[in-house]
Amino acid sequence: MSNPTQKCGAQRLFAANMRRIRKAKELTQEKVAEAADLHPNYVSSVERGERNISICNIERIARALNVPMAALVAEDGQ
Amino acid sequence: MSNPTQKCGAQRLFAANMRRIRKAKELTQEKVAEAADLHPNYVSSVERGERNISICNIERIARALNVPMAALVAEDGQ
Repeated sequence: MSNPTQKCGAQRLFAANMRRIRKAKELTQEKVAEAADLHPNYVSSVERGERNISICNIERIARALNVPMAALVAEDGQ
Repeated sequence: MSNPTQKCGAQRLFAANMRRIRKAKELTQEKVAEAADLHPNYVSSVERGERNISICNIERIARALNVPMAALVAEDGQ
């Protein structure tokens, strides 16, 4: 499970960007998970900032949301 | 070790962006590794597109290169 002491700022940044973009597109976490071929529980934990997500899964989520990967790590999108 | 069959496109994209930015800043892989507090062998393998790098290590490398994380996953930077 997640360990708060191991979180980096980028995890929280990714989570906030992902949530904002997903909601703007009116997609559920389940729809994103399905489109990304990832487990819904995993997608949910990523969006809570609990996962040190890898670049290949960043790519999957970006495709599922139909945004560039850069949008999910943008530091001015908050 | 790396398994070519497991690589995703984003690994190669990150590698190309990282190499281009690092060279533009006239930094060695060793200097980046030191600034990022990562092992030089790891940084080298990332730059060869062999690693499914995590977002926390993307953040470390971005800081070491003094660029936004988005620059390292930009899809129009090639």
